[in-house]
Amino acid sequence: MADAARGAVLPFFRAATLVAEDKGDKIADGGFDPVTEADRAAEKAMRAVLAERRPDDSVIGEEFEKHSGSSGLTWVLDPIDGTRGFVAGTPTWGVLIAASDADAVRFGMIDQPYIGERFWGGFGQARMTGPQGARDLKTRGEGPLSEAILCTTFPEVGSVVEGAAFREVSKVCRLTRYGLDCYAYALLAAGHIDLVIEAGLSNYDIQAPIGVIEAAGGIVTDWQGRPALQGGRVIAAAGRVQHAAALEILGRVIAEG
Amino acid sequence: MADAARGAVLPFFRAATLVAEDKGDKIADGGFDPVTEADRAAEKAMRAVLAERRPDDSVIGEEFEKHSGSSGLTWVLDPIDGTRGFVAGTPTWGVLIAASDADAVRFGMIDQPYIGERFWGGFGQARMTGPQGARDLKTRGEGPLSEAILCTTFPEVGSVVEGAAFREVSKVCRLTRYGLDCYAYALLAAGHIDLVIEAGLSNYDIQAPIGVIEAAGGIVTDWQGRPALQGGRVIAAAGRVQHAAALEILGRVIAEG
Repeated sequence: MADAARGAVLPFFRAATLVAEDKGDKIADGGFDPVTEADRAAEKAMRAVLAERRPDDSVIGEEFEKHSGSSGLTWVLDPIDGTRGFVAGTPTWGVLIAASDADAVRFGMIDQPYIGERFWGGFGQARMTGPQGARDLKTRGEGPLSEAILCTTFPEVGSVVEGAAFREVSKVCRLTRYGLDCYAYALLAAGHIDLVIEAGLSNYDIQAPIGVIEAAGGIVTDWQGRPALQGGRVIAAAGRVQHAAALEILGRVIAEG
Repeated sequence: MADAARGAVLPFFRAATLVAEDKGDKIADGGFDPVTEADRAAEKAMRAVLAERRPDDSVIGEEFEKHSGSSGLTWVLDPIDGTRGFVAGTPTWGVLIAASDADAVRFGMIDQPYIGERFWGGFGQARMTGPQGARDLKTRGEGPLSEAILCTTFPEVGSVVEGAAFREVSKVCRLTRYGLDCYAYALLAAGHIDLVIEAGLSNYDIQAPIGVIEAAGGIVTDWQGRPALQGGRVIAAAGRVQHAAALEILGRVIAEG
């Protein structure tokens, strides 16, 4: 499926023919959310693989209607996570694929077609392939916030109070970086950063990262420590210490409202 | 030189052995500016090439003392532009190489070793090579701010008033992205974005981007429209219309102080 999506999406990346449309105010940054032909082409390509190989599974994707199957397994697809980055030519958008049952993500994959990097986790594996070859994924493990590298996509994060809560965590961390979309979750799974904190996510934004990160030893929850399968306010952490410390700060600022 | 830097720097990228040091408060974001062994190794590798091939040229680099030559040509090197991004594992740092005389940049190169992308401009050429092959670089050309894609590295940009000026431009633009370091200038030269606005730059941060962007048809100045060879407050634009419109806003906010 990821190979099919790569083939569908790469001809559009950085191409002069790229057609961006405004899909509305789904994301906070001025309501600009381009959906490209590439988005639709990649999701169609992945759904075609599923229709042939897994016709009884359900399919949820960002671009098309839900397909309801009978197997109990649901594929959750985001053909291009980070469409704004895609439109700007940055190489940190990704194709997201998750396979989930009612309770949990069983397998997740984050694929970056332009760099040729692929990160996946599930069924006892957490691996990546890329320009420097293949290797196992493992999060950094426990560490204090004062040594943590934190990432998010938009500086405003979400609502005013969500942004304020994020900044309180950021103040305590060693380093904060912006603009990475799903690539931040891949870096966390690969052991390079400690925290990703975002808000306003959809299920198709977070299920693939959950699969990769949990298989690599990390933690993904909402800002109250509950399962984050449906998106919303999400925190991913390399270890329990960073996770608990950041949750405490986020909870306090949100409670103060 | 770029090949030599790639060979020196890649073994350190995403390696568990990476040693980050705190070089002080040079950059605004909490005073954290890691300089790695990779930084020094890459600059040494480039200086070794120059010592053999161009012994009479001057050399300015981020990591070591200036070498004064007699030829009138100066090489301006930043072995890793975006050391924080490097430490976080992001693929948007770069090796910067410029060759300048007293008045202008004659040649500039932005190299991204992990992706294997190289952007260069000068002597009548503006080209890139990367995962999708080789092609000419050409900026997007003229367009209104309302359709512009704007990039910077840190959301705070610089001082309080510099940040305020940036945000006034950002409000008018179609899309703003963060966190790219020198890669933003490469995207501008390649025709994917319209504006890069930054503050607090050094000469070694901006001379290579100047060479690439000017060769591709773009404009790089300070926030008053003067040459930006020495860094400071910098704006790069894909065309004169975006450049003039952004300068007007930046100047107004700075004047209001």
